[in-house]
Amino acid sequence: MENSIASAMQAHLDNLTKPAGSLGKLEGYAMKLAAIQGRVPPVIAKKAVYVFAGDHGIVEEGVSLYPKDVTHEMMANFLSGGAAINVLSRYCGFEVFAVDGGVDADFPAGSKIIDLKVGRGTKSFLTDEAMTHAEFDLAMENGRKLAAGAIKEGFDLVAVGDMGIGNTTTAAALLVATGFPAGAVVDRGTGIDDAALAHKYDVVVEGVKKHGPYSGAPDIMRKLGGFEMAEMTGFILGLKGSGVACMIDGFPVTAAAYMAFMIDPEVASYLFAGHLGKVKGHGPILERMGLEPIVAFDMRLGEGTGAVIGGFMVDLASKTACEMASFESAGVSKSGDVEKNF
Amino acid sequence: MENSIASAMQAHLDNLTKPAGSLGKLEGYAMKLAAIQGRVPPVIAKKAVYVFAGDHGIVEEGVSLYPKDVTHEMMANFLSGGAAINVLSRYCGFEVFAVDGGVDADFPAGSKIIDLKVGRGTKSFLTDEAMTHAEFDLAMENGRKLAAGAIKEGFDLVAVGDMGIGNTTTAAALLVATGFPAGAVVDRGTGIDDAALAHKYDVVVEGVKKHGPYSGAPDIMRKLGGFEMAEMTGFILGLKGSGVACMIDGFPVTAAAYMAFMIDPEVASYLFAGHLGKVKGHGPILERMGLEPIVAFDMRLGEGTGAVIGGFMVDLASKTACEMASFESAGVSKSGDVEKNF
Repeated sequence: MENSIASAMQAHLDNLTKPAGSLGKLEGYAMKLAAIQGRVPPVIAKKAVYVFAGDHGIVEEGVSLYPKDVTHEMMANFLSGGAAINVLSRYCGFEVFAVDGGVDADFPAGSKIIDLKVGRGTKSFLTDEAMTHAEFDLAMENGRKLAAGAIKEGFDLVAVGDMGIGNTTTAAALLVATGFPAGAVVDRGTGIDDAALAHKYDVVVEGVKKHGPYSGAPDIMRKLGGFEMAEMTGFILGLKGSGVACMIDGFPVTAAAYMAFMIDPEVASYLFAGHLGKVKGHGPILERMGLEPIVAFDMRLGEGTGAVIGGFMVDLASKTACEMASFESAGVSKSGDVEKNF
Repeated sequence: MENSIASAMQAHLDNLTKPAGSLGKLEGYAMKLAAIQGRVPPVIAKKAVYVFAGDHGIVEEGVSLYPKDVTHEMMANFLSGGAAINVLSRYCGFEVFAVDGGVDADFPAGSKIIDLKVGRGTKSFLTDEAMTHAEFDLAMENGRKLAAGAIKEGFDLVAVGDMGIGNTTTAAALLVATGFPAGAVVDRGTGIDDAALAHKYDVVVEGVKKHGPYSGAPDIMRKLGGFEMAEMTGFILGLKGSGVACMIDGFPVTAAAYMAFMIDPEVASYLFAGHLGKVKGHGPILERMGLEPIVAFDMRLGEGTGAVIGGFMVDLASKTACEMASFESAGVSKSGDVEKNF
C-alpha cells in the first residue's frame, strides 16, 4: 500500500462519527480497497460476478454425487435467475455473468452465456493430461480478455464463481501437486459418502503421481486443471494494476486463485476472500495467501455465493467510508473533548 | 419449533437447486425464521431498526472516553442520516427509528425522534438506585408499546440498537449482578486506557455490591440499568408470539436481551444474534442464551450496526428460500439421478 494513501485513508476513517476503529474489520476492508483503487475514500458503484463453468473428465471416475448434466442444466438456471447466485446477487447488487469455459453441451445461439468454451470438458487426468498446450494457453488468454472487458465495463468489484460437477476433485489435484497433503484437501464436495470419498482420494493421489514432476503452476494446471479454472486464473492475473478488486469464493475458485498467486504473489493485494466454505482445505489455502475470510457460513455451494456475500460486506465498508458524517459536519464531540465533562 | 413447520421447511430447502444443506448456516436461519413466522418459506418484506438512546448517571464517575453530550449529538446525526447505522441500514434495507428512552437533552418539537423519554438520564448506581419503581415500570411499558407498534406496522424483522455514553458500564453491572464475573464483562468500551479500565471495574463491582442482594432481573434492571435498556427489554418481551423476528446487536443490547431472557427464556426462540462484537463479555452472554453470532467483524460501535448486518443475512436466507428455483421448475437433475451417469 502506498503510505500516503494508507495514512490519508486512516485519517478519513478516524474523522467519521464513531469511536476510532469501532467498525473493526469493515475499516480494514475499506483500507485495502483504498490501496487497490488509490483513492480516498474508495468508491464501489458497479459490481459483477462471473460464474465460470466447465466440465471435468475426471467425473468419469465416479467422484461426484451429481451427473455431469448438472453443469449445463445449471447454466440455464443462471440465465433464468433461479440459482442461489442469482438470488444473492439480486440483493447484494451484483450483475451475474455465466461464462462457458468448457461445458460439455451446446447452448442455443443468442443465449446470454459468455462463450469462452475451450472444449467440451477436459480429459480425465487419471488417464490423460487434462488439456493440450493449445487448450491451456487459450483458457488463460480467455480469462485475461474477460478481465480486460470487466475493467473496460467499469466494474469496481468483480466476484469469481464456479460451476462444474467434479471441480472439487480437480481443485484438490491442483493443490496436491503444489505440495498440499491429499488428506488436507480432498473433501466430500457436494456430499459423497465415505466409500466415494476414499475413491476420490485415490483418484487424486494417483492422478497427481502419474503426471509429475511438475515444472510450476502452469504445468500443474494444464495436466490436472479445468478449462474454466484456467480461465479464472487468467482472469485474476488480468486484473492486476487495474484498480478493480476481486472477491474469491470457495474451494475451486480459491484453488484457481492460488495458481495465480503462485505465478504472481502480487495478486493477493487485490483479492478478498468472500467466505470460508465448509470444504476441507479451503482455510489452509486462504491462509497461504494471507487472506482472511469475511464470513463463515459453512456453505459449500460455489457459483460465487460466498464471494457476493463477502463482496457486499466490502461494499458496505466502502459505503460507510463514503457516506458517514464527520465529527465536524455532524457537530458531534470527539473523544478529545471529554475533559470538559469531568 | 412446530415439527410440521420444520419438516415442511426442510423439504422445501432440499428441493431448491443446490446440493442439500449447501447454503450452510443460511439454511439454519431460514429454518428458524420459518418457525418464528409459522410459514414455509418465511417472508421478509419490511425491516426496521430501533436505536434506543439514553444517558447514564454512572458517566459522572468518569467511565467513558466520550462526553455525555455525544448521546444527544448522535441522535441528531441519526435523524440527518450521517451515522454508521444510517449508512448500513440504507444498504441492508432497514428503516431507522431513533428512540429517546432517557437522553439528558430536549429535542426540538416536531423532530422525528420517537419520544419515550422516561427521564433525563438515570442516577449513578454508585450513589443511588438508577431508577425509581415508577420509572422502571414506565420504561418496560414503553418498550412493550413500541413492540406492539412495530408489529402493527407490519415489520417482519426488527433490529435493536443502542446509543448511550456509559452504557457498556451499565450493561456490565447488570451482568455482574446476575453472577457473571466482573473480569469477564468489564471492557474498554469506546476505547479507554488501562487506568480508566481499572476504575470502571471498581465502579461496577462497588455499585453492584451496594444494591444487592437482588430479587431477580427486574430488580437488577431498576437498580443498575438504563432507561433505554429497560425499554429494549420490554420491547423484546413484547414481540413474543407476534411472528416478528428480532436481531440483537452488541454488548449493551445483548445485556438487555439477557434480562428479557431471564424473565422469559422463550425470547431466545425469536432472537438472532447479529454479530459478535469486540467488547469482552459479549460472547459468553450470547452463549448463555444459545445464540450463535452471524458475523464477527470485531466491531464495537453499537447503534444496531451489527444487528442490521446480521439481519441482512437472515433476509438473504429468506430470499434464497423464497426465490430459488426447484429442481423440477429449473429442469436440473437431482443427486438421485447420478446412477444414470456411471
